[in-house]
Amino acid sequence: MADETGFATMGRAAGAEQIDESGIGMLGYAFMGKAHTNGFRTLSYMAWPPPLLPRLVAIAGRDEAAVTEAARRYGFERAVTDWRAIVEDPEIGLFDNGGPNDLHAEPTIAAAEAGKHVICEKPLGRHAAESYEIWKRVAQTGVVHMCAFNYRFVPAVRLARQMVEAGELGEIHHFRGRYLQEWGATSDEAWRFEKDRAGSGALGDLGTHVVDLARYLVGEIDTVAALTATFQPGRQVDDAFEAAVRFENGAVGTIEATRFATGRKNAFAWEINGSKGSLAFDLERLNELQISIGNDGFRTRLVSEADDPFWAWWWPHGHMIGWEHTFVHELHHLLEAIAGRTTVAPHGATFEDGYRASEVCDAIVASADTGERQAVRYRSLP
Amino acid sequence: MADETGFATMGRAAGAEQIDESGIGMLGYAFMGKAHTNGFRTLSYMAWPPPLLPRLVAIAGRDEAAVTEAARRYGFERAVTDWRAIVEDPEIGLFDNGGPNDLHAEPTIAAAEAGKHVICEKPLGRHAAESYEIWKRVAQTGVVHMCAFNYRFVPAVRLARQMVEAGELGEIHHFRGRYLQEWGATSDEAWRFEKDRAGSGALGDLGTHVVDLARYLVGEIDTVAALTATFQPGRQVDDAFEAAVRFENGAVGTIEATRFATGRKNAFAWEINGSKGSLAFDLERLNELQISIGNDGFRTRLVSEADDPFWAWWWPHGHMIGWEHTFVHELHHLLEAIAGRTTVAPHGATFEDGYRASEVCDAIVASADTGERQAVRYRSLP
Amino acid sequence: MADETGFATMGRAAGAEQIDESGIGMLGYAFMGKAHTNGFRTLSYMAWPPPLLPRLVAIAGRDEAAVTEAARRYGFERAVTDWRAIVEDPEIGLFDNGGPNDLHAEPTIAAAEAGKHVICEKPLGRHAAESYEIWKRVAQTGVVHMCAFNYRFVPAVRLARQMVEAGELGEIHHFRGRYLQEWGATSDEAWRFEKDRAGSGALGDLGTHVVDLARYLVGEIDTVAALTATFQPGRQVDDAFEAAVRFENGAVGTIEATRFATGRKNAFAWEINGSKGSLAFDLERLNELQISIGNDGFRTRLVSEADDPFWAWWWPHGHMIGWEHTFVHELHHLLEAIAGRTTVAPHGATFEDGYRASEVCDAIVASADTGERQAVRYRSLP
Amino acid sequence: MADETGFATMGRAAGAEQIDESGIGMLGYAFMGKAHTNGFRTLSYMAWPPPLLPRLVAIAGRDEAAVTEAARRYGFERAVTDWRAIVEDPEIGLFDNGGPNDLHAEPTIAAAEAGKHVICEKPLGRHAAESYEIWKRVAQTGVVHMCAFNYRFVPAVRLARQMVEAGELGEIHHFRGRYLQEWGATSDEAWRFEKDRAGSGALGDLGTHVVDLARYLVGEIDTVAALTATFQPGRQVDDAFEAAVRFENGAVGTIEATRFATGRKNAFAWEINGSKGSLAFDLERLNELQISIGNDGFRTRLVSEADDPFWAWWWPHGHMIGWEHTFVHELHHLLEAIAGRTTVAPHGATFEDGYRASEVCDAIVASADTGERQAVRYRSLP
Repeated sequence: MADETGFATMGRAAGAEQIDESGIGMLGYAFMGKAHTNGFRTLSYMAWPPPLLPRLVAIAGRDEAAVTEAARRYGFERAVTDWRAIVEDPEIGLFDNGGPNDLHAEPTIAAAEAGKHVICEKPLGRHAAESYEIWKRVAQTGVVHMCAFNYRFVPAVRLARQMVEAGELGEIHHFRGRYLQEWGATSDEAWRFEKDRAGSGALGDLGTHVVDLARYLVGEIDTVAALTATFQPGRQVDDAFEAAVRFENGAVGTIEATRFATGRKNAFAWEINGSKGSLAFDLERLNELQISIGNDGFRTRLVSEADDPFWAWWWPHGHMIGWEHTFVHELHHLLEAIAGRTTVAPHGATFEDGYRASEVCDAIVASADTGERQAVRYRSLP
Repeated sequence: MADETGFATMGRAAGAEQIDESGIGMLGYAFMGKAHTNGFRTLSYMAWPPPLLPRLVAIAGRDEAAVTEAARRYGFERAVTDWRAIVEDPEIGLFDNGGPNDLHAEPTIAAAEAGKHVICEKPLGRHAAESYEIWKRVAQTGVVHMCAFNYRFVPAVRLARQMVEAGELGEIHHFRGRYLQEWGATSDEAWRFEKDRAGSGALGDLGTHVVDLARYLVGEIDTVAALTATFQPGRQVDDAFEAAVRFENGAVGTIEATRFATGRKNAFAWEINGSKGSLAFDLERLNELQISIGNDGFRTRLVSEADDPFWAWWWPHGHMIGWEHTFVHELHHLLEAIAGRTTVAPHGATFEDGYRASEVCDAIVASADTGERQAVRYRSLP
Repeated sequence: MADETGFATMGRAAGAEQIDESGIGMLGYAFMGKAHTNGFRTLSYMAWPPPLLPRLVAIAGRDEAAVTEAARRYGFERAVTDWRAIVEDPEIGLFDNGGPNDLHAEPTIAAAEAGKHVICEKPLGRHAAESYEIWKRVAQTGVVHMCAFNYRFVPAVRLARQMVEAGELGEIHHFRGRYLQEWGATSDEAWRFEKDRAGSGALGDLGTHVVDLARYLVGEIDTVAALTATFQPGRQVDDAFEAAVRFENGAVGTIEATRFATGRKNAFAWEINGSKGSLAFDLERLNELQISIGNDGFRTRLVSEADDPFWAWWWPHGHMIGWEHTFVHELHHLLEAIAGRTTVAPHGATFEDGYRASEVCDAIVASADTGERQAVRYRSLP
Repeated sequence: MADETGFATMGRAAGAEQIDESGIGMLGYAFMGKAHTNGFRTLSYMAWPPPLLPRLVAIAGRDEAAVTEAARRYGFERAVTDWRAIVEDPEIGLFDNGGPNDLHAEPTIAAAEAGKHVICEKPLGRHAAESYEIWKRVAQTGVVHMCAFNYRFVPAVRLARQMVEAGELGEIHHFRGRYLQEWGATSDEAWRFEKDRAGSGALGDLGTHVVDLARYLVGEIDTVAALTATFQPGRQVDDAFEAAVRFENGAVGTIEATRFATGRKNAFAWEINGSKGSLAFDLERLNELQISIGNDGFRTRLVSEADDPFWAWWWPHGHMIGWEHTFVHELHHLLEAIAGRTTVAPHGATFEDGYRASEVCDAIVASADTGERQAVRYRSLP
């Protein structure tokens, strides 16, 4: 519980300390635009003092009326209908790309080459070649870059990582990850079913999250044997994929994602089994981590204690936070990196992580297409 | 899922529509001050367009350095060290009282008598007489008043209310509610254990929430038979209470609260059994409502669909919100009432609701003290 | 896992050892008759070697055709239509009374006075006076007596008792127990709604189980403040009761039972909170004990390990047993007591336990009738 | 609830009806021998009247003292040390083979060729060729044959099958099945790790169960892409396998099993997603079926109602049965088939089912060995 002033547990005193600003330019004002804006606005007082104070400078979108209203609603100083206006804007220090997948490469590279730090929604590119190009071009500029795999910033996921790193699970034998949604028959966002715009279906949208957490929690995937499926007649992209995987450290498991799991709203669930213990998680209960150390059964650990990851910013224990706060944590981490207080890796995903996830996804597609198990090969920068 | 503009499902277009402001003055900058501020800030863009745009005018606290920093952090225009400065401030239209229980009556009454709308944290007063006085004096002024029973604004609770009202459970036979926390041996907030300042212990702090939801979901309590307990030597207030209760409509049940339930972080759990079905809820899983219609078993309803209460403001289904968002909903509802678009009752708690909860709590104390079952008698305004 | 012989973990070698027989006479061949017969038959090979080998001598019932068929089905040597034939039968050493509540006193006392050991279904009597009379008269004969509170023989309950006794929960602060069923509108067993035959409704049928486990796990109840309810018009017995209780050791809690909890099939659920930890249980998941030691969350302990109570008789861990096996354990314990290897108390319920549960139930009725909190007073034998 | 006679809901009256006997000969007296014996003994009174009354004639094992004691314990008329004595015994009509995998083929074929009906533990053979041989040779004799896939006889599994058959899930899109245990580092049953005796490790022991239920609930598997792993140095058999699978009807999914899932005791869990609904199950909660029809969330269906599969034999609803009772149901079904009242298929597994599961397992091994996706090809009888 907080004391009467609240500052002891809920933030340190900033006093008259100067807090520098970071000018934000955002592409996209729909689902991700809203989530990111909420993240910037909330971190400015929840994590006190913030590493940099986000200043919402400009937001870009094609529909002038809609983007104008978005600017008013979310508090951006101006709305623009061409993302190039953001890339050129000297008041902007950070470019946040929440557009559809086919708008990831060009604006992100242009922003970085104009000297802006960049964050880009996942999947980084629509395939490994595009992801590699984005990573390579941006890395050459020296700016800070982050691929928005926000589930690394679920407190329970970060706690899991801490436990794995500390050896609490022993040698890892298994990872099984699945991301189950149910809305595959229809969507309001038509671009998600178009091959040119989305690149892939459940694979890029949901599967990349599974791949990224598998890599973050267990290690590099080196082998995949996979199938894909498209249930909806005439659909251009996959509705689901199923993969058996092997990790470099010898662990084996399954990875899958689908938009056709009736009854599962947002069930991004994974389990890790090690020689000493196991962990299990389901995003539908995002404040809980199931922990079994030894053989005594899984306990439901409410990840909401004062010393849990990110928790010092929030509430007394047992008072849940929401899905949207993964973005608060993620963007705070990014601002810390921009401020030079930390690096994006290893807890945030860099564009290299974005690229590596793409390689695994491409291998899944190749295995499904050829019927042959694929070794995943990762490229380095030249 | 949102479409590309996001406005279809996430808010309606406000266009160039004028949005009036409401000047906010707040007492207290600790736990509740933080939660309420976050509520005001978030509702201004999540529920678009907001009924009134909150303008954070002034925040009051005794420690000048701390309240000055709170104002900077949360974006209040000024900090004051005497709450009277808020009561007199012509720019303030809404007084939000998040101070300790012994600071509820005087400032709240003064603000109302100065023409400010008022919201006051629960319990309204430290006992029924004080609560009645607050209600009576404020009601006489004609301002809008709300007692901050925020759990009425959990989407799952509102959905439960809708189901009960629609008769989906049939005739109600049982309510069992308990609020279990575990921190009773120590607290950072010392005033919570002082009889003069808090009025009571688990009863006023947690039990009032149980009583309020019992009343909101089932109806008026007319009989209580209760025990209280103080486990900690030397403590002035109750650590727990246990009550058997009867409702005016014939339902019977149990109501209890404790700060000594080791392992229970914030387990405000209740269950309702009716002739046609049952509902169960636990705040530790606040996005879930357990529903059993007929005999086929309880289903875990993720309350996160587009047509669920409050959900149009938020995210695609399955993307959880947090505890803090009960305040977003509550304060939004209050602003709608101030804007004349709705009334605080029945979904928000008025000061009459705050007073009635106090009567039940007083009856619990009386039953525990005398050993006799108590009929709860409610006073009307003169 | 068992070795190839299976005897290492699943029973010890009896070799040519003589196993004495115990002649069983049973009253009642319906629900409880079936459950007890299954218990006797199963224990004879599951718990190897059994303390005594049950020999199913005679079964009594009023309907000659039905009891004749029951004897054939369950393997009794003979069927009788008058329980007195069992009481007088020299081949019978153990009288098992599974008849309706109004047939508990006379046959049980007669059997004991004829020198038979006796087990009687709960509630022992229809009220404390009758229970006391049964206890007193039977105790005077010196036979072994057991009241069939079978839930003491759930492995998870026995494990809970072991943990409480070992101090793993610290000082006990709370017990909350409820027994929820849903069939109260109708029943095939009409006698359960008749005051003369059943004594009471949910109280004697379900509530006695809650009271007995409260006593077994926490200690003697010394105070009750209670309400009862009858929802069904014209019904002679209670459909539900709700009680606040205090224990001699200072713990407080709630006890309740109902036959009107739609959706709850057989939810006998209890929770204990102590200063060091908590336990929770629900009969609908009878192989699980929820354990929280310290603040780290409740773990789901599958009570099915080789060293768990009763488990050496059964299967490899994780292979569940059923509700019916509580009777296997209970009757085995009784045969061990008859064989002189243990005593019924403390793990089995004696007739004194049956009587004490009746006193608590009578106090609940008295509190409901008078509106006054009741101190529970227990009589001793003269 | 049962009425006072209990026969209305718990069995029909057999009156003076003749019940024919079936002479049972059993190979093996360890884990499976115990489970099967308990099944035969229990079905003789639980499912009243039984289709045939099992008469426990002889049990075979190599250790004379041990098998002699087993016969005494379980009630077999005689013990033999050579299984051939059973095969030749004219009093035996049903041969029950619960021996290790390398003792499946020869005794089972010999018994069938001697005219005995046969039931054989899973996996039928150690590989598809052996399984095919057993099936072919036994089928030629015309006896009734069953492969003991007991999980088809979990009431929740049978209910799932009924729902799928009735089209309640719509078109099936996904099956994900896993069988997780944790004891892989050591076992009391050494033969389970020997390639010659067991054939395979987790694959044949646990994986066959997953394959069989996948086939029973969804349909034939036609494609597998798989990996296997052996974690324990020097071990001859697989410790785990992971497979992506496709069914003939277009559904896709994952199948896996491991003995290295720390904290998972006996977690045979599967989920089916169809266009109209989904089902989920976990053997650790064997009386529960998770059902989601439409999008309203999964409900926990306690499969213990009077009209649930097998339930008329047992208890009032909500009173759980145990894992061992899958054998009661299975052996009852077999006796019904022997009595000519039903056929083993489709609800029981025949030797053809045993063989087909072997083909899938062989394909998993082949895919793991070659790195190529395998089409599963099934042979017919000549």
